[in-house]
Amino acid sequence: MKPLFKDSLTVVNVGLAGFARDVVAAGGECVALDWQPPAQGDRAAGRAVATLLAHPAVEQANARAFDRFVAAQPALVDIAAARDVIDAMGRNRRLILHAGPPIAWERMCGPMRGAVQGAAILEGWADSTAAATQLVEIGAIDLAPCHDHAAVGPMAGIISPSMPVFVVENKAAGNRAFCNMNEGLGKVLRFGANGTDVIDRLRFMARTLAPTLRAALARTGSIELKPLIAQALNMGDEVHNRNAAATALLFKRLATALMGSDASRDAASATLEFIAANDHFFLNLSMAACKAMLDASAHQPGSSLVVAMARNGVNFGVRLAGTGNTWFEAPANPVDGLYFPGYSVKDAAADLGDSAITETAGLGGFAMAAAPAIVRFVGGTSNDAMHHSLRMRAITHGVNPAFTLPSLDFAAAAAGIDARKVVDRGILPVINSGIAHREAGVGQIGAGVTSAPLACFTAAIQALERSINGDGSIR
Amino acid sequence: MKPLFKDSLTVVNVGLAGFARDVVAAGGECVALDWQPPAQGDRAAGRAVATLLAHPAVEQANARAFDRFVAAQPALVDIAAARDVIDAMGRNRRLILHAGPPIAWERMCGPMRGAVQGAAILEGWADSTAAATQLVEIGAIDLAPCHDHAAVGPMAGIISPSMPVFVVENKAAGNRAFCNMNEGLGKVLRFGANGTDVIDRLRFMARTLAPTLRAALARTGSIELKPLIAQALNMGDEVHNRNAAATALLFKRLATALMGSDASRDAASATLEFIAANDHFFLNLSMAACKAMLDASAHQPGSSLVVAMARNGVNFGVRLAGTGNTWFEAPANPVDGLYFPGYSVKDAAADLGDSAITETAGLGGFAMAAAPAIVRFVGGTSNDAMHHSLRMRAITHGVNPAFTLPSLDFAAAAAGIDARKVVDRGILPVINSGIAHREAGVGQIGAGVTSAPLACFTAAIQALERSINGDGSIR
Repeated sequence: MKPLFKDSLTVVNVGLAGFARDVVAAGGECVALDWQPPAQGDRAAGRAVATLLAHPAVEQANARAFDRFVAAQPALVDIAAARDVIDAMGRNRRLILHAGPPIAWERMCGPMRGAVQGAAILEGWADSTAAATQLVEIGAIDLAPCHDHAAVGPMAGIISPSMPVFVVENKAAGNRAFCNMNEGLGKVLRFGANGTDVIDRLRFMARTLAPTLRAALARTGSIELKPLIAQALNMGDEVHNRNAAATALLFKRLATALMGSDASRDAASATLEFIAANDHFFLNLSMAACKAMLDASAHQPGSSLVVAMARNGVNFGVRLAGTGNTWFEAPANPVDGLYFPGYSVKDAAADLGDSAITETAGLGGFAMAAAPAIVRFVGGTSNDAMHHSLRMRAITHGVNPAFTLPSLDFAAAAAGIDARKVVDRGILPVINSGIAHREAGVGQIGAGVTSAPLACFTAAIQALERSINGDGSIR
Repeated sequence: MKPLFKDSLTVVNVGLAGFARDVVAAGGECVALDWQPPAQGDRAAGRAVATLLAHPAVEQANARAFDRFVAAQPALVDIAAARDVIDAMGRNRRLILHAGPPIAWERMCGPMRGAVQGAAILEGWADSTAAATQLVEIGAIDLAPCHDHAAVGPMAGIISPSMPVFVVENKAAGNRAFCNMNEGLGKVLRFGANGTDVIDRLRFMARTLAPTLRAALARTGSIELKPLIAQALNMGDEVHNRNAAATALLFKRLATALMGSDASRDAASATLEFIAANDHFFLNLSMAACKAMLDASAHQPGSSLVVAMARNGVNFGVRLAGTGNTWFEAPANPVDGLYFPGYSVKDAAADLGDSAITETAGLGGFAMAAAPAIVRFVGGTSNDAMHHSLRMRAITHGVNPAFTLPSLDFAAAAAGIDARKVVDRGILPVINSGIAHREAGVGQIGAGVTSAPLACFTAAIQALERSINGDGSIR
């Protein structure tokens, strides 16, 4: 008998649980370690991770990117027509922005097509959905991702030139981000509806809501969004799928300002009623704030931090700070969620929208511990919510001291998703998501929790590896 | 050797931990049961508890009282001058109501005296604090507890005839409750300040705030408070020391209504600014709602359920549903809390105010699990907050299905404090409390957690026992 076997052994089993069971069955003690090979066994990705995890250039680039992210101070500074603030729209009258990575009209999902048609009608370029389709097909309307124009939009994410957008400025670095304004629930453009009521509402938003809020903003001065989000996190929001507190706090600021503004009483009344009726009104502002914070950390060669996650209704796309404007795409994962009565998973569109910018910034699913009440909307228990927030710490560069989670005793929320860690640990970023009906115009049919597909991150880190020279310099 | 000692024993030790330690030291196994004699060893109280715990008449009375409490539907139905809705004020022009059980002028604490003086000046009965004191001393001003007039008031709890009060009606049983309106923080009457600025603010509240809110209420119709409180509990409030969400939700309702009301723009503006500046504005409405719910369960002969807990700055008082209007009093326990910079426990007044009506109704400290962020204000950790809510289940008749606690996976909050269980288990009702400076007019100097004194409950259950005849009938 070899000396090893003279003592009683405690075995650590890594990998398949079957081996551990055999040891226990034979009367031994065994600790089963929950481990999977990095990149789910993808050798090339595994090697890239190994290289990058130990790489000082990556560490330095990440520290720089993260510092800029944490230092960002997004503030609502203006509300303006998209064409007046998004440069490309000034040059190109017929440009429509959409959610997610680039996608051709032919491949767009139902809700996104419906929304593009609606925008063409709203702009007066077409008088019917058929005419709108024709214009797109002959190339008379250009389509581009919001993200390519410092913008974001929930669900279909459609922004056309006349639509009012929130203008959020990161006062620390000066960069600006834009998001359209939330229409409310039911039949709305972002779910692909494009009937007269939808177009009329969009006209009201441009003609009444936006100028009235602009008048209020002239009274308040720019509104700092980070403290407002921080406060909302202490009031049960995660500012992605739950925005009740943030909307109420914003409403308070706007309503008092409106009373002292030169807005007419009718306009003020209509504006306040519109916001008061929609607990998600703040979502689009949350998204613009997150975009402004993350754009500040983008374009740091060598960095493995994620600066965008977005869905176009077909693919999920990821951008890293270290790989410029390249999207790394994979088919979107299904959403595990609660469906509204009468609907089920067979009615669901693929995961859609730029709203995962909130998770990219450490909010939404990453901050779910702040919002136990959200499990009533997306499913699960309040323990699951805490668990999501804790688990995300394993894949982030650090935490954001500005955003704290009361139920975890004010621990700062995980932030700065590190693509290396996602691939190495096989833990996917969690995303709270609304679920759209796959047909245009039906609207939201549920909400749930999903995750970013691993393939986006394995592709991203391999591209990042290729960007680094043998001597450690960045290509 | 006796058969008992042949086997290895596991000992259960009840009481002093020292015995358990001896067993363990001798190599035995011992489970130490955390137990104390009922009523901290008070034999008479212990006997009363034993009698009452097994008493069918008490069980029946408690079930009745609890049903009426749970069925209550408090709604804000009006805002009116106290004299117009509190009967005794219509008959007695010079009546001032105060917090807690009855207390003579001579024994009142500094903040309460200052507030009485301020009210006399506000009413035009006196032109100086000295003149006000003289009027009280010669009996030209009557003093009475708010609770004797279906009213409640935070801290000093002063209500004088011209002050506007919230009128809350329990739509299930028709009973009404009243509470004055919250002045905000800093130098305010409820902390005993009575300078010109304090009086001016009270005049603004009577002349502008109250009629403007009344105009808004005319538009909204009566506002159901139970759903509003339930929503606030899902947004981090416990509606005693944290009312940020409830205030914001109320603000949303009022602001939209105001825009469509006949209130002038100036009045609407001043009103909204006043509310927006005070995250505690909802507290007084929460208190009136709780008073309306609990008054519905009062006057049920034989019931050991608590229908009021209140502090007059000297004594803590408790009323049971089964013992009419009798107060059971004891000196207030100290508040274990966080002090604002520059203050300490030596500056603190004794626990003060009717706001413990929220805990009596299963909110405040009982619902602390809903409000982890409150530990930043009252001290402790978010685990402490959960622990308080869980521990209170041991001393309540049941839970209130209307009020759920998200971080406990939407468990209903404990409600219906049973004085028998408090005495039997030695677990004291937990109370979130503001801390007033002991001198009039300095204001709030901290906040913390305290408990209702056991002596109130031992006295109460002995009185309850005396009210039951030998044959089980109620005297």
